[in-house]
Amino acid sequence: MGNSHIQIQILGVQGIPIVKEGDDLASMIIEAAEASAIGIKDGDIVVVAQKIVSKAEGRLVELSKISPSPFALRIAELTNRDARLVELVLRESNRAVRMKDGHMIMETRHGFVCANAGVDLSNVSGGDVASLLPEDPDASASKIREGIRRRRGVDVAVIISDTFGRPWRLGHVDFAIGVAGMKPLRDYRGEKDMFGYELKVTTMAVADELAAAAELVMGKSSGIPVVIIRGYEYERGEGTAKELIRPIQQDLFR
Amino acid sequence: MGNSHIQIQILGVQGIPIVKEGDDLASMIIEAAEASAIGIKDGDIVVVAQKIVSKAEGRLVELSKISPSPFALRIAELTNRDARLVELVLRESNRAVRMKDGHMIMETRHGFVCANAGVDLSNVSGGDVASLLPEDPDASASKIREGIRRRRGVDVAVIISDTFGRPWRLGHVDFAIGVAGMKPLRDYRGEKDMFGYELKVTTMAVADELAAAAELVMGKSSGIPVVIIRGYEYERGEGTAKELIRPIQQDLFR
Repeated sequence: MGNSHIQIQILGVQGIPIVKEGDDLASMIIEAAEASAIGIKDGDIVVVAQKIVSKAEGRLVELSKISPSPFALRIAELTNRDARLVELVLRESNRAVRMKDGHMIMETRHGFVCANAGVDLSNVSGGDVASLLPEDPDASASKIREGIRRRRGVDVAVIISDTFGRPWRLGHVDFAIGVAGMKPLRDYRGEKDMFGYELKVTTMAVADELAAAAELVMGKSSGIPVVIIRGYEYERGEGTAKELIRPIQQDLFR
Repeated sequence: MGNSHIQIQILGVQGIPIVKEGDDLASMIIEAAEASAIGIKDGDIVVVAQKIVSKAEGRLVELSKISPSPFALRIAELTNRDARLVELVLRESNRAVRMKDGHMIMETRHGFVCANAGVDLSNVSGGDVASLLPEDPDASASKIREGIRRRRGVDVAVIISDTFGRPWRLGHVDFAIGVAGMKPLRDYRGEKDMFGYELKVTTMAVADELAAAAELVMGKSSGIPVVIIRGYEYERGEGTAKELIRPIQQDLFR
């Protein structure tokens, strides 16, 4: 069969500087990708860790400026946590999905279900500073995509990734919270498998699988917040991470 | 920075023949990987779709040989499903996690939580035949790993992957149900991130992320049931997919 095998490359973009509020992520990604001989090509998927997006967008909050509500104070007392952090978690949430054993599994204002509504104290420079999820992660992805298109004339897909725990399984995985330039779900409905059966599993969350694949290169402490995935033929189109949110009517666990 | 960037390759192994009961998967994988110029190298991760493992191990059941219990008949009537299939799902399960709206979210005998306890009608040759998960997917992975070591003298990790739905999120992703030769969880406890913070997220389910990455090449209808992942430095060791199962005491949703 020669060398014509199917291959996807997951390329870690090293050399992204420390991100500050107002930074132009598209330019930083282009420069680092070109400096490391990876470059950016038409059809690439650029996966960007939520943390640097939140920092570029100024989604940092000094805890000293937060006044906890009575409910936040009560939860903080019961769970032995910082009441100002609990207050931020509540402000970022639509609802609590599970509050138990000190955990706060929340539905964020975007509709994602995750621990602490994505509010995080790690990877933020300075002292008692919390980072919040981007206001609109799809818009964050679109902005990076447009910046790359404007500067280099290539059409890429962009995924903003974040780290999720899971019911029933231990360990965390990265999934997509923002998408631009691709359909996040791949629909196999009506297709036949290699034995002629109509496929039962109709949709794969390929944006989540791409985010998970990227995490293998990002690691957690290695300082690689941007990964380029090359060779995966995604379905181009507008796409939004909202397509990955299960409507509550179809959700057996919310 | 030259060309020394971090890179993982996801390589689809084409040319695996239709698998039958008793087939030696290790030999078939080696032959197809070598015929397609991928080969198998020390440190590779070989991801194998559950479906061909179940077939090689004869985990196929003719529905005509199954007598449904009264409970299976009752569920089948309520959900408009084949009572013999429901009976098989019940036999493969430790418990029902959610039975609602026609869905059966079950804890399998291994402890995995998934729809229909992994019982599946697709991708099996013949008529009314169901495929069950391997009896012991870790042992299945070990057997393939040992076969590759014996024939080619290389140490690889093997992951048996299967397709999972998720609460809260739409679309399916592939995760690991069997592991050999690697630690499925990567522990960042005590490490500092690039800003000196102690990391909050302590463990990543890298075996699940590897399975998800492999699915991008497997697709669902493309007939690529084996993927080799090259360039990911996993932690070698005994490892079992049981480490990926959340103990019920730590589970907020079971």
